[in-house]
Amino acid sequence: MLTSDAICALATPPGAAGLAVVRLSGDGCLQIADACFRGRSALQHAASHTAHYGKLYKVGEIDGTVQMLDTVVATVFRAPHSYTGEDVVEFGCHGGMIVSQEIVEALIQAGARPAEPGEFTKRAFLNNKLDLTQVEAVGDLIHAVSVQGSHAAARQLTGGFTARLAELRERVLRICGLLELELDFSQEDLELIDRAEILQHIETARMFCEELAASHRSAEILRSGYTVGIVGYPNAGKSSLLNALLQRKRAIVSDIPGTTRDYIEERIVLGGLAVKLVDTAGFRSSQDVIEVEGMSLAESLLEQCNMIIVLNDITLGEHHSAPLLHKLRSAFPQAECVLVHNKIDAHLPEYSPSPPSSQDHQASTLRISAVSGTGIEELKDYIRRQASSDTALVSDALINARQAALLRQASASMQAAMDAVWANASNEFIALDLREALKRIGEITGAVWNEDILNSIFSKFCIGK
Amino acid sequence: MLTSDAICALATPPGAAGLAVVRLSGDGCLQIADACFRGRSALQHAASHTAHYGKLYKVGEIDGTVQMLDTVVATVFRAPHSYTGEDVVEFGCHGGMIVSQEIVEALIQAGARPAEPGEFTKRAFLNNKLDLTQVEAVGDLIHAVSVQGSHAAARQLTGGFTARLAELRERVLRICGLLELELDFSQEDLELIDRAEILQHIETARMFCEELAASHRSAEILRSGYTVGIVGYPNAGKSSLLNALLQRKRAIVSDIPGTTRDYIEERIVLGGLAVKLVDTAGFRSSQDVIEVEGMSLAESLLEQCNMIIVLNDITLGEHHSAPLLHKLRSAFPQAECVLVHNKIDAHLPEYSPSPPSSQDHQASTLRISAVSGTGIEELKDYIRRQASSDTALVSDALINARQAALLRQASASMQAAMDAVWANASNEFIALDLREALKRIGEITGAVWNEDILNSIFSKFCIGK
Repeated sequence: MLTSDAICALATPPGAAGLAVVRLSGDGCLQIADACFRGRSALQHAASHTAHYGKLYKVGEIDGTVQMLDTVVATVFRAPHSYTGEDVVEFGCHGGMIVSQEIVEALIQAGARPAEPGEFTKRAFLNNKLDLTQVEAVGDLIHAVSVQGSHAAARQLTGGFTARLAELRERVLRICGLLELELDFSQEDLELIDRAEILQHIETARMFCEELAASHRSAEILRSGYTVGIVGYPNAGKSSLLNALLQRKRAIVSDIPGTTRDYIEERIVLGGLAVKLVDTAGFRSSQDVIEVEGMSLAESLLEQCNMIIVLNDITLGEHHSAPLLHKLRSAFPQAECVLVHNKIDAHLPEYSPSPPSSQDHQASTLRISAVSGTGIEELKDYIRRQASSDTALVSDALINARQAALLRQASASMQAAMDAVWANASNEFIALDLREALKRIGEITGAVWNEDILNSIFSKFCIGK
Repeated sequence: MLTSDAICALATPPGAAGLAVVRLSGDGCLQIADACFRGRSALQHAASHTAHYGKLYKVGEIDGTVQMLDTVVATVFRAPHSYTGEDVVEFGCHGGMIVSQEIVEALIQAGARPAEPGEFTKRAFLNNKLDLTQVEAVGDLIHAVSVQGSHAAARQLTGGFTARLAELRERVLRICGLLELELDFSQEDLELIDRAEILQHIETARMFCEELAASHRSAEILRSGYTVGIVGYPNAGKSSLLNALLQRKRAIVSDIPGTTRDYIEERIVLGGLAVKLVDTAGFRSSQDVIEVEGMSLAESLLEQCNMIIVLNDITLGEHHSAPLLHKLRSAFPQAECVLVHNKIDAHLPEYSPSPPSSQDHQASTLRISAVSGTGIEELKDYIRRQASSDTALVSDALINARQAALLRQASASMQAAMDAVWANASNEFIALDLREALKRIGEITGAVWNEDILNSIFSKFCIGK
């Protein structure tokens, strides 16, 4: 344990609700709690895992007057049987922003300090309550935007992934052990193990790493949602389409081109998966100050999209948006660009369907009327199918970028070890590569860690976690 | 107790955080909890006020597979020692939207039903854990936007107001008692009490009601914040002023008049009091579709303002906004209309200060430059002083509209009683009016209630309270 001074923070989301919880953890936290709390008896004498009703007070900084802040329930958890592994008191108070802030301030006046982002969970890690994959599962569980993502994070939290990594580590350690044992007998020219067998063991471990790493992109969709950008020339009906997908009025819709300033992001749930809809500013060359500001924003948004809907105003012709579609396909290769014809209910005197052009990769063209709702369900179904086919790989680990990078490094080290076996290198060299792989695997769980690794993980956490 | 079937809901605000709490209350809730929870031992055997670590599971509706949702801490409160007065289990889970929703669904599958808005607190009222003024204090505490408001709500929650109303009730009951006692002896022509004394007692009680009712407007400011509307002709710099007051970029600022579509509402805190800033669409007669939509909205917003800042572009002259100021003063008499000159740093070749016109009621004219920040602190200070002078009256009760109406009705009945005394009416008639006043006072605390009263109060609550 490194630091264990008492820290406190609001642990529940900010906002108005029936309940909020302020968490206090660390040395002396029961004394600090008792300085603010009056119940039937002092919390210092309370048994672990007991809840106590009482009032919470704050002493005025300037005039010393005592102000009653709220009636609360204080729950005591004694070390090591708490989230952080330290003594913890959780105050359940009424869920108002002001009252929870005031309680945090009262605890600070009594000797606690405000917790840094992720500090409660960091202490849980340092006190061996959670490994790093579990720490990351906490983050994923909290930010889960899909049921599948939440379930996978819960499995990772309770150590499913930890167990699989431990198995991998065990397997690689055993090979290392054999190689190093053989080394001890090298004077005697004994070959204790079959090279082919070693190669097979390493390759199995390497494939395991590669497969896990490959599930990163799918995990990312479960983690953040499937992102669909809606683009099109001004007045193609992007805002109307967004409203139709949301089934409510969100964007201001008008007949004046370029109405949507800033961008609008909304979420819908399709088949248990969160889908982020991003309505960007219209794509045109524009001298309009605001429109241009929106444009550069749009391009950075489209880089994050899994799908880009190019909305074409069919009243201007089937191929009206072809240049835009072409441009987007080359600029954003990571996304699936889909052409959707809008305004199909409009009176089209000159309309004659033409065969799909060679540029159009879709099996069937999607035709909608955002205003009347025609074709909207078909479009939703199309998005749902694309999204779920992209997330089939994930089981009990939501591989994130950090883990994927370490898994790929471990895989590369194992590949180097195999190359060394092929090159008939000495066992020393082979084991060295495998030890390198083990180190990377250790970094995934935090068996091997340093402050930089921890900082990069916990800095992403909010205060109160 | 009317209904006591098991109900459940997320009790903490929606959003991502370290913790969320799902509350379960009512008959059989320990059995329901045990159907989803696996800890060291069953919650049914747990003592009241104890916390238990374990895992929470959900059974798939279609395939019957068991899915682990999260690791949780379940806290058991046994009737009557709980918030609702019933058996309660609170599940502290990780603060993700999906995971808390899933836990609610698991509990519903196990036999609970979703709680209605305010249902937990309604049960607390029906089980005599809280009276209605305390119920309303819960709401005020949760939605408090100012420290003073939060403190006053906490005092009301712990029964300060309840005690004062009990005293008032006692006083009126005593007068009734005397009047009715005298009635029993009326055959004997005894005058047991002095008329003047009775009048004084009633008047004291009536004044108490009136004073409490009069604090309603101040309480409203503490409750919802002091609302400041920012209006002006297009391009007067309203968005720039909003940004300057917020000290960050919120509104899109451009040189194109009429940029602010929709309205923008932001909060700042001045002297511990929440101040709502409302930037409305520019006031002009406009054919622009969007601008007009924003306008009618603006008018309904201004009706809620405590202060209206009329922002004048000084480069167009000191009296440029006089017609607007005049119009607003007559249209919105509830608000203090303040003229503020903007762009004072601009190069003004023809500028010559003129004496304040007779229409200008302000002691000194506020002059600012929203872009450079000149005068912004003075303007904030001006708002702060106006707001705090409007909230001086509130002590331990945040009188709301319902309470104020009942207090005024009670006061009117007492006035009628006094009129009856003056008219030498029989004690019967006087007592009748006082009994009417008592009934109104009883409605304030809920000593007298009916379903309509409860519905109107609890319908304002969110689910989970």
